[in-house]
Amino acid sequence: MDTGNTLGLIAGTLTTAAFVPQVVKTWRTRSTHDISLGMFALFSTGLVLWLVYGVMIGSLPIVVSNIVTLALALTILFFKLRYK
Amino acid sequence: MDTGNTLGLIAGTLTTAAFVPQVVKTWRTRSTHDISLGMFALFSTGLVLWLVYGVMIGSLPIVVSNIVTLALALTILFFKLRYK
Repeated sequence: MDTGNTLGLIAGTLTTAAFVPQVVKTWRTRSTHDISLGMFALFSTGLVLWLVYGVMIGSLPIVVSNIVTLALALTILFFKLRYK
Repeated sequence: MDTGNTLGLIAGTLTTAAFVPQVVKTWRTRSTHDISLGMFALFSTGLVLWLVYGVMIGSLPIVVSNIVTLALALTILFFKLRYK
């Protein structure tokens, strides 16, 4: 693996890791009262577009990190809609 | 501008926009009690690495969106350290 991909994957790991505590908290509490559905929908849509962009330019780090972050985001969205 | 860059810039606008309410709230309240310094440091480091990665692969959307998000993140970090 080249330096660019390694660097990108480390970057993706860090920014995705920062998102994990929110998912864990939501998973445990099932409480999503303070999470804005609108902003969250924007964020998830952005992740899908980053994913498409990553595929278009052939960037492994962008594709991988956005798939993982999207999975985490959809988990929160599920709880938001399920326990509203 | 080609389709890829346009798509990437829209993606960056959406994921960065989702971050703005937190910055506005922190700016107004000067309160960062519930924000984890450790996770935030990880996130900011990740943004810097994404920025370097974007420059390395010559991706305008990655460079632009990470500069903007980093500026927002550093604003929160400033308040975190200033009003702790």
